[in-house]
Amino acid sequence: MDQPPPSPSSPLAALIVAAGPGVDTGLARLDPAAFDLVVAADGGLDRALARGIVPDLVVGDLDSVGAAALAEARRLGARVVAHPRDKDETDLELALAAAIEAGAATATVVCDGGGRLDHAVANLCVLASPRWRRLALRALVDEHEVHVVRTDRPCRLTLPPGARVSLLPVGGPATGVTTRGLRFALEGGRLEAWAGRGVSNEVVSSPVEVSVTAGVVLVVVGPVSASSTPTSDRPDARG
Amino acid sequence: MDQPPPSPSSPLAALIVAAGPGVDTGLARLDPAAFDLVVAADGGLDRALARGIVPDLVVGDLDSVGAAALAEARRLGARVVAHPRDKDETDLELALAAAIEAGAATATVVCDGGGRLDHAVANLCVLASPRWRRLALRALVDEHEVHVVRTDRPCRLTLPPGARVSLLPVGGPATGVTTRGLRFALEGGRLEAWAGRGVSNEVVSSPVEVSVTAGVVLVVVGPVSASSTPTSDRPDARG
Repeated sequence: MDQPPPSPSSPLAALIVAAGPGVDTGLARLDPAAFDLVVAADGGLDRALARGIVPDLVVGDLDSVGAAALAEARRLGARVVAHPRDKDETDLELALAAAIEAGAATATVVCDGGGRLDHAVANLCVLASPRWRRLALRALVDEHEVHVVRTDRPCRLTLPPGARVSLLPVGGPATGVTTRGLRFALEGGRLEAWAGRGVSNEVVSSPVEVSVTAGVVLVVVGPVSASSTPTSDRPDARG
Repeated sequence: MDQPPPSPSSPLAALIVAAGPGVDTGLARLDPAAFDLVVAADGGLDRALARGIVPDLVVGDLDSVGAAALAEARRLGARVVAHPRDKDETDLELALAAAIEAGAATATVVCDGGGRLDHAVANLCVLASPRWRRLALRALVDEHEVHVVRTDRPCRLTLPPGARVSLLPVGGPATGVTTRGLRFALEGGRLEAWAGRGVSNEVVSSPVEVSVTAGVVLVVVGPVSASSTPTSDRPDARG
């Protein structure tokens, strides 16, 4: 993990592979060669190896990854960092922290949304954490793509007209929410933490832009068909 | 909808049926006869009728419900309240508001978790809203059961040892979180809005109790097998 620090001209791009069957859908929409660093979060190792992706790093309590996969990863040069099973952090949190420690400026997280409801929601909450504010962060969750928009991190996405976009404030209300390119426009608007007002917006012109002056908003795009729609531009480390 | 106000001895119990394929899984685990009032949220009407459940009330923008189902519901005595399509509230919010207006003291929401990620997350955020604090509230989401725990609404659940339980703070941090019957115990603990610390706890003894002194915690139970595990006790209107 002796990666060089990111330079302005070439920010280090991390791919984080989580566990769960939905991960395959997200991985199929990505080019692994576009990433400088691959981190497998526990059982994500099996998903990565199955697609021929060798992680640089495997982190987690290693309770959901096979011994054979671990041995294979080690043989291929991966570093394995085992954490205690009774830990306070989820495997995704450990993986994000490891990516930052390795110097990543952007991270694409591929995780599962369809199986465990608690995991899916906790993963989205984790993405919104201020702990990762140094990272330009997006996630592929099954057929959805999620971008994390913070005060200093607006997002700008190339999306086809008609695509479904939802704005979800996480962890508290978001204020000063301004959008471009969406059917229901917001100009310095407020999204309450408990309300569904931001759900089911629609792209009318591209690029789509979303910014906030306080709080965190997840921009959820999709569902998209894996065969017809590529993932949007990779996260822009310039924020 | 001219329901009597709830009396302490017999609180009015509402069943809210949302749209989506996962709703069938939840409905299969319930006895519709246990409810005094059934509200269909938009396309939930189709799901209800398919199981022989006739709603008392249908609410929503009616963009995802068939004309034949609407006509059938009206013929069977349901009241239909159509809202504008470009509304700020989701169908679930409209249904919860209607249940309270009709005098409900408890509500069981059956909704879909596996299809649209944005809907699933928004639904959980909506459940946590202080707007419904008068309701003892739980949701069946595919193979999961979700209970809303607020300052004045602890929850007490009969659950089998080994069952998976996650505690998810929603809309902000939760403090004074105290649990009974779970493997990783909390005694006046704090759960951060952005962290996954409350995920993947486990029942060691029943009943399980969860309370908070500030904030809102969703207690997510499951996944459970529809065939082997009944839903937990219906929400307790005494709070």
